[in-house]
Amino acid sequence: MAATVKALAVSITAQVLALAGTVMVLVWCIHFRGGLAWEAKNKALIFNIHPVLMLIGFIILGGEAIMSYKALTLKKETKKLIHLILHGIALILGIIGIYTAFKYHNESNIANLYSLHSWLGLGTIIVYALQWIYGFLVFFYPGGAQGLRAESLSWHVIVGIFVYLLAVATAALGFLEKLTFLENGGLAKYGSEAFLVNFTAIVTVLYGVFVILTTISQPSAQVEDQYSYSAI
Amino acid sequence: MAATVKALAVSITAQVLALAGTVMVLVWCIHFRGGLAWEAKNKALIFNIHPVLMLIGFIILGGEAIMSYKALTLKKETKKLIHLILHGIALILGIIGIYTAFKYHNESNIANLYSLHSWLGLGTIIVYALQWIYGFLVFFYPGGAQGLRAESLSWHVIVGIFVYLLAVATAALGFLEKLTFLENGGLAKYGSEAFLVNFTAIVTVLYGVFVILTTISQPSAQVEDQYSYSAI
Repeated sequence: MAATVKALAVSITAQVLALAGTVMVLVWCIHFRGGLAWEAKNKALIFNIHPVLMLIGFIILGGEAIMSYKALTLKKETKKLIHLILHGIALILGIIGIYTAFKYHNESNIANLYSLHSWLGLGTIIVYALQWIYGFLVFFYPGGAQGLRAESLSWHVIVGIFVYLLAVATAALGFLEKLTFLENGGLAKYGSEAFLVNFTAIVTVLYGVFVILTTISQPSAQVEDQYSYSAI
Repeated sequence: MAATVKALAVSITAQVLALAGTVMVLVWCIHFRGGLAWEAKNKALIFNIHPVLMLIGFIILGGEAIMSYKALTLKKETKKLIHLILHGIALILGIIGIYTAFKYHNESNIANLYSLHSWLGLGTIIVYALQWIYGFLVFFYPGGAQGLRAESLSWHVIVGIFVYLLAVATAALGFLEKLTFLENGGLAKYGSEAFLVNFTAIVTVLYGVFVILTTISQPSAQVEDQYSYSAI
């Protein structure tokens, strides 16, 4: 179903949201939360790397990877390479981002993996990695047989959209969880930091919506072969 | 894009998840949290109505409403009536469920509308209600002109899917928020109640996935006219 909106126009809206989300998460973690550090006595600075990498590195770059295949007016092979590389970088930054959460917990004697955020997050990154590996082998190198590629395409798109939505939902859970901890520790429920975090989460959700809208809108350059996204 | 899976088979999996979610939320709110009450000295019993109505009434019935249009093998007019009535009941139960959260807050002197869960939840129910009213007027009574109906159909499906996914994400946020409050109050992070709540959230997310998979799978009875869901 190609909705009657142009992929390029939708993806430009997504870029504005991506820029807003990037600025907001940096203002939160640097201005309000004291900055980022890989090693520090103040362990909270280690944690601060987590939302920055997960939002800018994983969610936003992953979204750009999805949109690039549909919104750019380049040759299919070029778009496929961009799609593959951007998803690869998003995956690596996501894994480092998750590692910083464990590092913070371990150095602060906080339990790991008890929350819904952590469970869904781990599930998301595992499916994301499997999807990337499968996509690499079947669509890029060495490449599957014609029948397998055709059979896999719908599922590549469906699983990709679902896992991306799960990533966005997990981000929203993370913002809510961290803010709830801070509010339990005394942060004002209607203060400027609380509003910033909630609005960052809303911008993230809206970005996710526009990323998915791009996949169901009209491609910038109509590609007629069966491997284009226009299957959706 | 009609994926090569049958809507009926997908929706049966969804029914199993719906049953599991129903049992789990009832066990949580009645066995672990002490039961449900409209008026009570123990205000927590008023809150308990909220997750029960939001999951069984809003999310599950809303999901049935979505799937009924695609998975049932009935005449289009009958399916449309079922779709409309189920969504209407889901909306009413959702509104009552949200009211109980405010009632609990007000009677317990807890602040309203400061959390991401509450913001997204309120946004969801408002868009859901507007979508229902628009659908009623354009597709049911008095019914829009042919051009308007055709124009509106894609957007009815797209907005419907997005608002449903937002409802599921909001439910996950609610489970996480409530459990975080309980854990801050001393509930064991790896205890049986914590696992039950997290698994109820996961069953809810999986139910949402299967509801949406139903909408993109092959219809049970292929309806060829332009008002069927097969547009997707």
